[in-house]
Amino acid sequence: MSNRPVLALVGATGAVGSVMIDIINARETVPWGEIRLIASARSAGRKLTVRGEEITVRALAPEVFDGVDIAMFDVPDEISAEWAPIAAERGAVAVDNSGAFRMDDDVPLVVPEVNAHKVAERPRGIIANPNCTTLSMMAALGALHREFGLKELVVASYQAVSGAGAPGIDRLYAELEAVAGQKLGVKAGDVREALAAAGLGFEDSPFPAPLALNVVPWAGSYKGDGWTSEELKVRNESRKILGIPDLKVSATCVRVPVITTHSLAVHAVFEREVTVEQAHKVFAAQPTVVLVDEPEQKKFPTPADVVGEDPTYVGRVRQALDFPNTLDFFVCGDNLRKGAALNTYEIAETLAPEFG
Amino acid sequence: MSNRPVLALVGATGAVGSVMIDIINARETVPWGEIRLIASARSAGRKLTVRGEEITVRALAPEVFDGVDIAMFDVPDEISAEWAPIAAERGAVAVDNSGAFRMDDDVPLVVPEVNAHKVAERPRGIIANPNCTTLSMMAALGALHREFGLKELVVASYQAVSGAGAPGIDRLYAELEAVAGQKLGVKAGDVREALAAAGLGFEDSPFPAPLALNVVPWAGSYKGDGWTSEELKVRNESRKILGIPDLKVSATCVRVPVITTHSLAVHAVFEREVTVEQAHKVFAAQPTVVLVDEPEQKKFPTPADVVGEDPTYVGRVRQALDFPNTLDFFVCGDNLRKGAALNTYEIAETLAPEFG
Repeated sequence: MSNRPVLALVGATGAVGSVMIDIINARETVPWGEIRLIASARSAGRKLTVRGEEITVRALAPEVFDGVDIAMFDVPDEISAEWAPIAAERGAVAVDNSGAFRMDDDVPLVVPEVNAHKVAERPRGIIANPNCTTLSMMAALGALHREFGLKELVVASYQAVSGAGAPGIDRLYAELEAVAGQKLGVKAGDVREALAAAGLGFEDSPFPAPLALNVVPWAGSYKGDGWTSEELKVRNESRKILGIPDLKVSATCVRVPVITTHSLAVHAVFEREVTVEQAHKVFAAQPTVVLVDEPEQKKFPTPADVVGEDPTYVGRVRQALDFPNTLDFFVCGDNLRKGAALNTYEIAETLAPEFG
Repeated sequence: MSNRPVLALVGATGAVGSVMIDIINARETVPWGEIRLIASARSAGRKLTVRGEEITVRALAPEVFDGVDIAMFDVPDEISAEWAPIAAERGAVAVDNSGAFRMDDDVPLVVPEVNAHKVAERPRGIIANPNCTTLSMMAALGALHREFGLKELVVASYQAVSGAGAPGIDRLYAELEAVAGQKLGVKAGDVREALAAAGLGFEDSPFPAPLALNVVPWAGSYKGDGWTSEELKVRNESRKILGIPDLKVSATCVRVPVITTHSLAVHAVFEREVTVEQAHKVFAAQPTVVLVDEPEQKKFPTPADVVGEDPTYVGRVRQALDFPNTLDFFVCGDNLRKGAALNTYEIAETLAPEFG
């Protein structure tokens, strides 16, 4: 037992942290000798049950990392920026799910089924977990890239509100209750009026426009030249994960009234010819991808059918009619599982044998 | 008065027909000498008020077209297929909003601000109105094409349920009421279970999957090789309207829980270089396009803010980072107005002087 690696979870009491504990609890076996739960001083002292054992949450402090082999971080960017290096100094490998280190040249950005070997290249002792939107399509794109050589990517997203955390979920439910019983949508402003009547203003909303009976072409913050942070993450992180520095990418990120699971419409151009049949074979051979693609039966993935599931679901696979070597397809991935907690934990699992 | 053209509206009592009457009533002036309302025998005899005058709806029959100059059709494909040629035989120009004639080489497909001159080329006496999804982006794309020469188009749609008529609207409201008060979305099937508990099955739904808290990558019928009718319409109708027979198009059509107004994420490649500033100028010069594009203020169009409006709204205009001569943008258009009734009526207005 004492030889087995010690795992720490920083942000254990947050939304993603609790999904992480669910995932650890659901695993048949785990390689860990000890699991340490860490959170802010405010949450310290709480007791959480992990694999049948009650564990007291400790407050974040340098010494809690002593003896830790792998420390998973699910905390805001600025907390990660400060504390992941401290964990690394104390000898742990930090696996970070914030945006603080993703584009750092000395930090690998890892999706195990795509680039697991990169975990070894970590001069800072930090490994980054990608943004949830990028992650939702990586298992599918990585598999296709290995076979056909990806060159260009045009994507439009249908992003769930839980990407904005618990406040995003609460907000959508509040908005839906304000509009559900009414016959709205005859004129502009109807939805805004219904929300105002229910006391729902936009000063403290996580979203810049109504999401009930609406879609909002905005996610993240403004980064200049018209682009949002989310759209640039899809471009830059896809390039880094797939190892294609000159991959051509255009993304339009749109929030939709879905609680959990991001979807993307993907237009992917390859170096070599690719048919629907070949793509189906590649997806079938990828254990973390589930293919649901029977258009004659109207069978395809939808976010409501994928929430809570670990794999990436792919459907509506079509060979482009006018673009050579090009596939169009639709992909759904649970943004809280593969998009966050699951991939972070899979990186930790990939590292575990080093400390066995 | 007797010299002014006679207008007929076939399908006067339908959803689009009633929007058509709203539009006629809202016009400052109309060129018509007489307006004739026509519907199925079941609706004949009903009285509707048009521009202050009570008009009795007549049953569809060959002789109701006698003396009619322009007959607008808002009826199902098979009714149009049978009756538009009968109206034409009786001397009327049929302006048809069904899918029956759109790809007929002897029938022009017209968006007045893009290709008004085509109304003269009508050997069959029939002019077609485009599909609502295609129409939602045509005013914007037509203006850009004139200036920069469109070559390629990759689009993903966010389509409103009213594209499926009144049953689509009723279904979404019923689904929203079934889920609004609940905290769903933790596991796959939750939404389906909530709908089943509310007695909402899928045998008689206009949609093949839940739309509450979901998006559905399917619109129209299956056309083989993975493509839906809606996706092929976007390709084939865009080519015909813009007069670019070899335009490269890939579309993914997705239904979203929005009542009215279709949105599209558009990736458009041009022959010549185009900047955001140039695109803004082109949109500003197009009277039927409204530009809402102040990303630093998080200002962009959303469907809820566009419903009931005549123009096409454009925002999130970006010069693609990795593709030459390419713009990415987001467009919203009311699918019942410009997408159906308004454009049909604008074609009739374009024809009116011929009969003046």
